Amino acid sequence: MIVDQAKYVDGFRRPCGDLSDELEELQNSTDGGFLWIGLKEPEAPEFDLVVAELGLHPLAVEDVRRGRQRAKIERYDDTLFVVLKTLKYVDATSDIETGELMVFLGQRFIVTVRRGDLSPLATTRHQLEEHPELLRLGPVAAFHAVVDSVVDEYRRIDQELANDLEAIEAGVFAGDNSVHSATIYALKREVLEFRRAAVPLARPLSALAAPGSPLGEGEARLLLRDVADHLAQVIDHIESFDRLLTDVLHAHLARVGVSQNEDMRKISAWVAIAAMPTMIAGIYGMNFEHMPELGWKFGYPMALGIMALVCFVLHRLFRKSGWL
Amino acid sequence: MIVDQAKYVDGFRRPCGDLSDELEELQNSTDGGFLWIGLKEPEAPEFDLVVAELGLHPLAVEDVRRGRQRAKIERYDDTLFVVLKTLKYVDATSDIETGELMVFLGQRFIVTVRRGDLSPLATTRHQLEEHPELLRLGPVAAFHAVVDSVVDEYRRIDQELANDLEAIEAGVFAGDNSVHSATIYALKREVLEFRRAAVPLARPLSALAAPGSPLGEGEARLLLRDVADHLAQVIDHIESFDRLLTDVLHAHLARVGVSQNEDMRKISAWVAIAAMPTMIAGIYGMNFEHMPELGWKFGYPMALGIMALVCFVLHRLFRKSGWL
Amino acid sequence: MIVDQAKYVDGFRRPCGDLSDELEELQNSTDGGFLWIGLKEPEAPEFDLVVAELGLHPLAVEDVRRGRQRAKIERYDDTLFVVLKTLKYVDATSDIETGELMVFLGQRFIVTVRRGDLSPLATTRHQLEEHPELLRLGPVAAFHAVVDSVVDEYRRIDQELANDLEAIEAGVFAGDNSVHSATIYALKREVLEFRRAAVPLARPLSALAAPGSPLGEGEARLLLRDVADHLAQVIDHIESFDRLLTDVLHAHLARVGVSQNEDMRKISAWVAIAAMPTMIAGIYGMNFEHMPELGWKFGYPMALGIMALVCFVLHRLFRKSGWL
Amino acid sequence: MIVDQAKYVDGFRRPCGDLSDELEELQNSTDGGFLWIGLKEPEAPEFDLVVAELGLHPLAVEDVRRGRQRAKIERYDDTLFVVLKTLKYVDATSDIETGELMVFLGQRFIVTVRRGDLSPLATTRHQLEEHPELLRLGPVAAFHAVVDSVVDEYRRIDQELANDLEAIEAGVFAGDNSVHSATIYALKREVLEFRRAAVPLARPLSALAAPGSPLGEGEARLLLRDVADHLAQVIDHIESFDRLLTDVLHAHLARVGVSQNEDMRKISAWVAIAAMPTMIAGIYGMNFEHMPELGWKFGYPMALGIMALVCFVLHRLFRKSGWL
Amino acid sequence: MIVDQAKYVDGFRRPCGDLSDELEELQNSTDGGFLWIGLKEPEAPEFDLVVAELGLHPLAVEDVRRGRQRAKIERYDDTLFVVLKTLKYVDATSDIETGELMVFLGQRFIVTVRRGDLSPLATTRHQLEEHPELLRLGPVAAFHAVVDSVVDEYRRIDQELANDLEAIEAGVFAGDNSVHSATIYALKREVLEFRRAAVPLARPLSALAAPGSPLGEGEARLLLRDVADHLAQVIDHIESFDRLLTDVLHAHLARVGVSQNEDMRKISAWVAIAAMPTMIAGIYGMNFEHMPELGWKFGYPMALGIMALVCFVLHRLFRKSGWL
Ligand SMILES: [Mg+2]
Ligand SMILES: [Mg+2]
Ligand SMILES: [Mg+2]
Ligand SMILES: [Mg+2]
Ligand SMILES: [Mg+2]
Ligand SMILES: [Mg+2]
Ligand SMILES: [Mg+2]
Ligand SMILES: [Mg+2]
Ligand SMILES: [Mg+2]
Ligand SMILES: [Mg+2]
Ligand SMILES: [Mg+2]
Ligand SMILES: [Mg+2]
Ligand SMILES: [Mg+2]
Ligand SMILES: [Mg+2]
Ligand SMILES: [Mg+2]
Ligand SMILES: [Mg+2]
Ligand SMILES: [Mg+2]
Ligand SMILES: [Mg+2]
Ligand SMILES: [Mg+2]
Ligand SMILES: [Mg+2]
Ligand SMILES: [Mg+2]
Ligand SMILES: [Mg+2]
Ligand SMILES: [Mg+2]
Ligand SMILES: [Mg+2]
Ligand SMILES: [Mg+2]
Ligand SMILES: [Mg+2]
Ligand SMILES: [Mg+2]
Ligand SMILES: [Mg+2]
Ligand SMILES: [Mg+2]
Ligand SMILES: [Mg+2]
Ligand SMILES: [Mg+2]
Repeated sequence: MIVDQAKYVDGFRRPCGDLSDELEELQNSTDGGFLWIGLKEPEAPEFDLVVAELGLHPLAVEDVRRGRQRAKIERYDDTLFVVLKTLKYVDATSDIETGELMVFLGQRFIVTVRRGDLSPLATTRHQLEEHPELLRLGPVAAFHAVVDSVVDEYRRIDQELANDLEAIEAGVFAGDNSVHSATIYALKREVLEFRRAAVPLARPLSALAAPGSPLGEGEARLLLRDVADHLAQVIDHIESFDRLLTDVLHAHLARVGVSQNEDMRKISAWVAIAAMPTMIAGIYGMNFEHMPELGWKFGYPMALGIMALVCFVLHRLFRKSGWL
Repeated sequence: MIVDQAKYVDGFRRPCGDLSDELEELQNSTDGGFLWIGLKEPEAPEFDLVVAELGLHPLAVEDVRRGRQRAKIERYDDTLFVVLKTLKYVDATSDIETGELMVFLGQRFIVTVRRGDLSPLATTRHQLEEHPELLRLGPVAAFHAVVDSVVDEYRRIDQELANDLEAIEAGVFAGDNSVHSATIYALKREVLEFRRAAVPLARPLSALAAPGSPLGEGEARLLLRDVADHLAQVIDHIESFDRLLTDVLHAHLARVGVSQNEDMRKISAWVAIAAMPTMIAGIYGMNFEHMPELGWKFGYPMALGIMALVCFVLHRLFRKSGWL
Repeated sequence: MIVDQAKYVDGFRRPCGDLSDELEELQNSTDGGFLWIGLKEPEAPEFDLVVAELGLHPLAVEDVRRGRQRAKIERYDDTLFVVLKTLKYVDATSDIETGELMVFLGQRFIVTVRRGDLSPLATTRHQLEEHPELLRLGPVAAFHAVVDSVVDEYRRIDQELANDLEAIEAGVFAGDNSVHSATIYALKREVLEFRRAAVPLARPLSALAAPGSPLGEGEARLLLRDVADHLAQVIDHIESFDRLLTDVLHAHLARVGVSQNEDMRKISAWVAIAAMPTMIAGIYGMNFEHMPELGWKFGYPMALGIMALVCFVLHRLFRKSGWL
Repeated sequence: MIVDQAKYVDGFRRPCGDLSDELEELQNSTDGGFLWIGLKEPEAPEFDLVVAELGLHPLAVEDVRRGRQRAKIERYDDTLFVVLKTLKYVDATSDIETGELMVFLGQRFIVTVRRGDLSPLATTRHQLEEHPELLRLGPVAAFHAVVDSVVDEYRRIDQELANDLEAIEAGVFAGDNSVHSATIYALKREVLEFRRAAVPLARPLSALAAPGSPLGEGEARLLLRDVADHLAQVIDHIESFDRLLTDVLHAHLARVGVSQNEDMRKISAWVAIAAMPTMIAGIYGMNFEHMPELGWKFGYPMALGIMALVCFVLHRLFRKSGWL
Repeated sequence: MIVDQAKYVDGFRRPCGDLSDELEELQNSTDGGFLWIGLKEPEAPEFDLVVAELGLHPLAVEDVRRGRQRAKIERYDDTLFVVLKTLKYVDATSDIETGELMVFLGQRFIVTVRRGDLSPLATTRHQLEEHPELLRLGPVAAFHAVVDSVVDEYRRIDQELANDLEAIEAGVFAGDNSVHSATIYALKREVLEFRRAAVPLARPLSALAAPGSPLGEGEARLLLRDVADHLAQVIDHIESFDRLLTDVLHAHLARVGVSQNEDMRKISAWVAIAAMPTMIAGIYGMNFEHMPELGWKFGYPMALGIMALVCFVLHRLFRKSGWL
């Protein structure tokens, strides 16, 4: 389905007719104009039409149709084919969901195709349309806007994961029982999902942003370097999260064992206390003929008193050792 | 044993006569034709004949005959020699079995030799024969079809392993007793087997798929880049599996300890409860002459009642602490 | 807010008029003079003025305004844009706080912008002003002074962290209960924060300090190599801290378990001792008609004596085994 | 001691006279002949003679005499000096013993020196002498034969270690008590010893086997690539062993703890069972005047029966929970 | 303080006059002579004189004066500046102490400066003076002698650490209680200190020893390659130590837990044994009127006999299970 399509001439939006006609016209002109076609659901016949009109490469088109591709930047003659993994953070479950956004970047056109519900580009397009000076840079301006919005989302998720990690840390080290090892492990899984989306993009994006880029030496390269820079920062953080989560998991697992051992110690301490009156009662339960205390008038209360005293003293001792 | 052999001229299959004669004829012609000889059991004399007719290099031939080679791509003059590790996933045992597929890729021929029962190539060949436009690219089209089918199988196994890992995770974190550390370890072993098959192929395959490839700059290079891309994705996943399995193993081992500690705590709690009536009984078993309760008519039921009450209260307390 | 601004001509400080006029004059002259503008709070309008007068690149300016950038060295035409992460160590909490210092290094000017309260540069500037021979090297001398002061602070913090680590080690291995796993983990977090500040700077700083540097082959390059060298040393130490902290955390977690087990062993040993008199009392509490001891005159004290003796012997044995 | 020395001319063995005379003659001839001198115990005076006659470099000679060198390939003008670590697997103890084999590879000679009892080369030489077509390649053929025999031994040991690892895995996960952590650790040590022998050789051997090798582009380079390939496979396996051994060690250590906890649970369960009759006996040991059961004729057998019943029921319950 | 200073001409030691005069004379002559000035305590005024006479670079001089530098090799025009970390092993405490040795290597001079008491160079110098053929190579011969003596010390320490590690391993796996986790951790710390001294030197030393070295292609380069080679071997070993120590630490921590659990099992087993006579005594302490055994003449000895028998049987059973 075609979500939006337009021609940008001299920095301003114009309606767009038949694609191949428009493209031919743009190729001959020199005013830096380009087409931007935004699609979703690439299974639909509209995509076939775009493919045919713009002459997109079959291998790239196959990747778009199949989906589940690795993040990458590939060159087909004059056209760059880019797969971006769009991420969405579901706050309730701390889950990261991965979508896909495919981009064809030609000399005079850009095609953006999104799979799944994630990452609507309408906002990105509207924001860019308010900057004619950027649009005059050609389709690479749209490409930058798209990659920038994807990486900005990475940064927001980076912040969310940092919060989740901090919550887990607080829980683990405060001895909060609401933290389970499953929670820590699940966050680790999301961090790895994040890593798989972000890391493969870093090297080719840096190559596009470095001197000698196929996009030329102009402003566009500097814009992409800005995005590559944010991506590098996100990847730094992911690495830290990964290391910290491993340590937190170990600390948590150890803490669970420690807390159980504390229970055992407490139970054992109470059993030890209860063993004392039992022992004393056993002694006065012996059947010797000559046991003077048994004849005493206050023998029984005395025995009970000794029992209580021993229990009280033991209890205080155990309290002091931190066992109770 | 020769499984199938044919000549492909102008994209269509033709029967194939004496190999060296056909080869000489193809070398002189300019219509992009090639021979595809498919073998299995390279110990048989048919392979000797192919080797002699096509002039395959003795070192590569020795590798084919011996088997148990590392995945690799080697160049012998004009011929590429490729060892692929074919994998098969046995669902019942979650075991990966490794086979071998050797390929000689010449200018006008391709020889595929498989060892063991894995990876029949008949389907691959039939599918390719329905695409004359690919066959016209020459033997590299057959090479691509073979590598693609091997890597596609990697992707299926990747998915299977992801399922197995998810099942293990669910079991471990749900406290399911059907997960044993042996299961986790066995999966780790298979992941390493997978890694040994996939990782050594990545670098040489990328080199074949990169600009400056010995296979030239045409469509063939792009086809191989598509496969290299899938391989990279599989390797990303293997890395994730490896890291996650280590964490799951630790979590599982800790959980087993935790579960045993829970049993101990439960037993100890019951012993602590039983210690109370024993203590009370001991007290009323003492032989003091002056113990008024002993003479009471309802002394005995009172004692039994106190015992029951203490047990009931302790039981509730232990329940509330989560110890029972 | 402009904190300080001056012109340096022939190694000495001069007052500075309108920026663009001064700059034009300096560009034409040949006496190696330059402007140094020091700012803080880049949100203020003064910064806009500097940007306009010196023609700073909008992307770099945006980074300055937004903050939270990764440490980096970027080139915009003739100007280097550098982001330094300034660190401050809070001794009371062993916390590292991260600030930012942005530097624009042009041919005839240097602009330093700091965000947050950390890293006042007044001292750095005053110290440099006492070395006219350095100031004659041009703005790169100021750049060196700034980077050097940042990295020198890294070295001080490196030393502080080494002290903190040693304190933790001493505590863990001396069995000191004041060390908690949260403390170790918190230090690991700070080490990772340190790493994120220091590591990304290493490669570009080394590139500036290596032969073929964009800063030329003069004295300035050697000065920066000196700083790059200190940075490398700091990074070596961070790596060691990271490895050691992991081992210390494991040792600590194990020690906590060991210490709890010691408590359990002690309690169990006491319960075992108490079980002996209870058993003996039970024996003399049996109701057999023919139990000669029961009739003995000193039967009762004898029984008590045996109990005391058994307890005493057991206690000595347990002491000797190290269980008590 | 000179073990064997011969001249190989046109692929066949000839007796060998004075070394420097033979060498001069071979240098002038063009029939690809070479000398192969095999030595052991380089302390002996024969080695001095060889060194003097062939003009071997003093630094390499010093390495040979001292021994305990790292595996390496070094170039001294026209001569390659190679240190190979020969390994021997002692099956009884699963121990790997390391020997050394030094090789000087000149244009017209090869000198092989072995230290210690490992790695006799007689078999290697005899096998090569049956292949005149290889001997005609010059001394590099002998070099290949030697390296190949060393790496083939690596492969055999690789297989042995795989067997040892499998035996350990089977023991650990079957709960076999014959596996001790010392066994696992010892195997890890041997794997590291193996790694130190194999890994440093990989890079220089690959360089000799790669296009642009100092040994030229002929058959010899392909022969060495074959060996480099096997070495790479061995190193892959060593990496896997290392990772798996770490996991097996963790699993084993955990299993030992689990097995001890099982013992504790069993003992505690029996103590809990024994506590029941003791409690009941305590109740009927109370001295209340009004305890009707005490007067019953079958009171005593009833009490014993209740005790037996309670024990029986508890035992069944504990069995069902898997505690006994 | 100047420890020793001399001129070496044509391989032999000559007294040395005013430094700058001697240097000028040597520069004009062609007999390969050089000056070797050995200093300690670089704070002293003699060092200022050397600096002035030989024109040493201020940045390098500052590094010498400050100390605590990273091991490195830096180039200042025609002079190499080298920082070596000298190590000393204190056998009693298994502690490694780090000193510093700074070297200025010019075309016609070498200056060696040592900080701290470690690493006297007198022996090194005397040994070299017995080899005029080496001294004729110029100051690089002295440089080689110094680096060689430092790295030889590394090798000795490498051997010492190997011994310490073996002692720890033997202790841990033999269950020797003299090994504490603090010992293992301390060794790990020393290994990391060793690593920090050795690893940064490897790359620049290899660069000096590789073809294209700034020291030229002569004998000197080969001499340094010999040292670089030993350094590489030491680093290999350090890596192994590091990995093994981590495993030994884990094994040790687990063993401590296991040993405590054994104590607990033993105590619990004894408590379980003691529970049996207590139970039997409880039964014969019941007050039923009809308990025939109570009237038996040998009832009491029979009861005692049963108690003894039960204890004996249990003890044997527990022995057989390995619990006692
Ligand atoms: Mg959340
Ligand atoms: Mg997710
Ligand atoms: Mg952005
Ligand atoms: Mg930016
Ligand atoms: Mg931006
Ligand atoms: Mg435990
Ligand atoms: Mg399965
Ligand atoms: Mg398998
Ligand atoms: Mg495929
Ligand atoms: Mg399945
Ligand atoms: Mg694809
Ligand atoms: Mg495809
Ligand atoms: Mg502090
Ligand atoms: Mg902080
Ligand atoms: Mg500094
Ligand atoms: Mg402090
Ligand atoms: Mg310095
Ligand atoms: Mg300095
Ligand atoms: Mg325990
Ligand atoms: Mg064995
Ligand atoms: Mg060994
Ligand atoms: Mg071989
Ligand atoms: Mg064996
Ligand atoms: Mg082979
Ligand atoms: Mg072979
Ligand atoms: Mg020692
Ligand atoms: Mg030390
Ligand atoms: Mg040496
Ligand atoms: Mg020692
Ligand atoms: Mg040597
Ligand atoms: Mg030597």
